[in-house]
Amino acid sequence: MIPTITAFKQSPDRGRGLARDMRVRWALEEVGQPYEARLLTFEAMKEPAHLAIQPFGQIPTYEAGDLTLFETGAIVLHIAEHHGKLLPDDPKARARAIAWMFAALNTVEPPIFERTMAMILERDEAWYAPRLQSLETNIRKRLSALSAHLGQADWLDGSFTAGDLMMATVLLRLKDSGLLEEHHNLSAYLARAEARPAFQRAFAAQLAVFKAASQ
Amino acid sequence: MIPTITAFKQSPDRGRGLARDMRVRWALEEVGQPYEARLLTFEAMKEPAHLAIQPFGQIPTYEAGDLTLFETGAIVLHIAEHHGKLLPDDPKARARAIAWMFAALNTVEPPIFERTMAMILERDEAWYAPRLQSLETNIRKRLSALSAHLGQADWLDGSFTAGDLMMATVLLRLKDSGLLEEHHNLSAYLARAEARPAFQRAFAAQLAVFKAASQ
Repeated sequence: MIPTITAFKQSPDRGRGLARDMRVRWALEEVGQPYEARLLTFEAMKEPAHLAIQPFGQIPTYEAGDLTLFETGAIVLHIAEHHGKLLPDDPKARARAIAWMFAALNTVEPPIFERTMAMILERDEAWYAPRLQSLETNIRKRLSALSAHLGQADWLDGSFTAGDLMMATVLLRLKDSGLLEEHHNLSAYLARAEARPAFQRAFAAQLAVFKAASQ
Repeated sequence: MIPTITAFKQSPDRGRGLARDMRVRWALEEVGQPYEARLLTFEAMKEPAHLAIQPFGQIPTYEAGDLTLFETGAIVLHIAEHHGKLLPDDPKARARAIAWMFAALNTVEPPIFERTMAMILERDEAWYAPRLQSLETNIRKRLSALSAHLGQADWLDGSFTAGDLMMATVLLRLKDSGLLEEHHNLSAYLARAEARPAFQRAFAAQLAVFKAASQ
């Protein structure tokens, strides 16, 4: 059964792999599962047909037979469990990999995503400079902690897991920001993730969508 | 084996159930698992002994034998899986309940938590009023979507799950904000969650810690 995901018809990130379908595409590529992508306009994302499967009107979603899922964390976890890959077999190591998935999404991503939103929505406001500085202070705290944990290891806890997949997609948003580059081991970690063939296939697939829509 | 969690010795929420150990205490109460709490000062949270089990220097953590976990999402998921409760047996319903856990933490919580932080840290800034308004606009969008999904149901997807537990603890932060009260079904949803005996035991336990520390 070929699952179907949803993605932006015209991604606001201009195909740089920041739209959240990237996470699901990458996970599907890692486990070797072909998929189809249904592309949605911003208008279609707010229509009842999409809201019925994604209550918050976002992308991506995941449909396989009569299973419909939303939230990239849940989708990637389902893909990992369904295929028996991207999570260690050992129950304790598995639980720790899942902890890294949640850490990526609930602890590291929020200030990073907020910074992107502030750069888009608050750039012309009087408070932009101090606001950006405050956000970057928060981001630096998270990155310092992450860098201290990673040390000289290749991945966050043993071999590559769904936790690394989520963390790398969160850090991708900081590429060329100067913030990630303050920690050489985090830059190298992201580069290691980006070098994975599955990442590259997923990246190419989402970029192709953007290029096709821009022609 | 009695698991040990960590919690604030002196919670900044003054025992109102907003510190994140509440989620783990509640889950443990729901499954009927006794536990011990190790209380940490802010200083102790930044010491190497704690950073070794919580790289970001936060609470709570969960220790059971040689398993050590952090991130409330991962801990609650582990408790649910370990005890075979708080998640449906049907694999599809289980995956959807996990999607609601991630939705609570990654989609609904960020603007709500940001509002709390802005109210603490930015109250005296020139931009406070427009900033608060902008955050509340974001929160209202999420609450409207959540309310539309919930409709007249008791819980988010069938019977009470770990997804409801996470969502209720996220909404708890909006109690008496006026925002939650714009949607009667969401106020009622939170009240239904708070009325659960397991919630009440967990709430009493974390409040007792705060009261003891304040004497």
